[in-house]
Amino acid sequence: MTPITTLGFDADDTLWHNERVFRLTEERFATLLADYSEKNHLTDRLLAAERRNVLHYGYGVKGFTLSMIETAIEVTDGKVPADVIAEILEAGRDMLSHPVDPLPYVEETLKAVKDDYRLVLITKGDLFDQERKVSASGLDVYFDAIEIVSEKNADTYKTLFSRHGTGPTEAMMIGNSLKSDILPALEAGAFGAHVPHDITWALEEADAPHGSDRFFRLDHIGKLPQLLARLS
Amino acid sequence: MTPITTLGFDADDTLWHNERVFRLTEERFATLLADYSEKNHLTDRLLAAERRNVLHYGYGVKGFTLSMIETAIEVTDGKVPADVIAEILEAGRDMLSHPVDPLPYVEETLKAVKDDYRLVLITKGDLFDQERKVSASGLDVYFDAIEIVSEKNADTYKTLFSRHGTGPTEAMMIGNSLKSDILPALEAGAFGAHVPHDITWALEEADAPHGSDRFFRLDHIGKLPQLLARLS
Repeated sequence: MTPITTLGFDADDTLWHNERVFRLTEERFATLLADYSEKNHLTDRLLAAERRNVLHYGYGVKGFTLSMIETAIEVTDGKVPADVIAEILEAGRDMLSHPVDPLPYVEETLKAVKDDYRLVLITKGDLFDQERKVSASGLDVYFDAIEIVSEKNADTYKTLFSRHGTGPTEAMMIGNSLKSDILPALEAGAFGAHVPHDITWALEEADAPHGSDRFFRLDHIGKLPQLLARLS
Repeated sequence: MTPITTLGFDADDTLWHNERVFRLTEERFATLLADYSEKNHLTDRLLAAERRNVLHYGYGVKGFTLSMIETAIEVTDGKVPADVIAEILEAGRDMLSHPVDPLPYVEETLKAVKDDYRLVLITKGDLFDQERKVSASGLDVYFDAIEIVSEKNADTYKTLFSRHGTGPTEAMMIGNSLKSDILPALEAGAFGAHVPHDITWALEEADAPHGSDRFFRLDHIGKLPQLLARLS
């Protein structure tokens, strides 16, 4: 049996709520534009803008704010008043100072595993905002390393599990996104533990892997120590 | 004499033009708002917005675009038409795909020093956009490590010169910003070589250090090998 020495943890919606903050802001956005567009239509157009813009902006709140502004102009045929744009700017800034709420079981799980494994936080998105959230969460004390990357693919996991551990084959990635956390980690040769979150961004959706004996699904992150005990 | 083993290079306006792209975009912004605001006043208001927002947005093009939109709303007392906002969004996106032009002497200098020193690129700003520029410049092949950080202070240099070299006292930081590249590197115990650029963003201005025997000023980056030879 391969020993596991290193645990990689995704952050947004694995360690703390994130998607919820985006959904709340989308509600606020829909209210601002209620006179111009029906909510479902607006959400579709916003998602289309995000999908287009992720190539230019990468992930994160600032790009999301720019996509909201673009969508507001689009759905109003250029008639959106400047005070609505000002409110969108404010909604974006509010996201950037939103409190960081750890998810249930997170802190006790990190405490339980930290002495037996090297812990690496691996998150993608905006450097500045992710650093703020890591620090605001108070969870940074449990990690041996924190890596903020622009994209999570197999190479990312190979590099990071080699830099901070004993290579990908002796590492496990834990996260809520099959697409970003689990599939590329498995491709890199690591173990993957999927911890589903109740809301998933459309751009993060993917099918579960088939036939991998390195793939596990946990009801919640609190089940991780049990899984690790079983594998060791 | 302390040996120098490691060279840290700033990127924007040290290895390639950057501030020029911001200034061109400011011209475009001024043209868009010419009916509402006189150029100097507009530039002042934009700088004030950037200064306020850097705490929320950090450095980079996306935050700059958001600050332009905010300023456009401000200087027009909320009367800016949506098509002007759309043009500002486009100006921001154009910045994010702007070609990366290495500065004179850069490539030959990197070639000249790369076999005798460990080379680390240390740049602050937006992760996604900085990675794009590093890759588009073609200069990444000369570096042993590339570090994109959210802020450059003495601790940043201590950490990075320890991670990639033999510690700050045996390292030299080379860059165009006294405030971000030179003063904090000197504070960390490293050498600092200031390579002035013809335009400097107001938020990067600082006075030159006095009485440090680890501080040097170069007319251009091509003089670096000569300085290193003199110090070794």
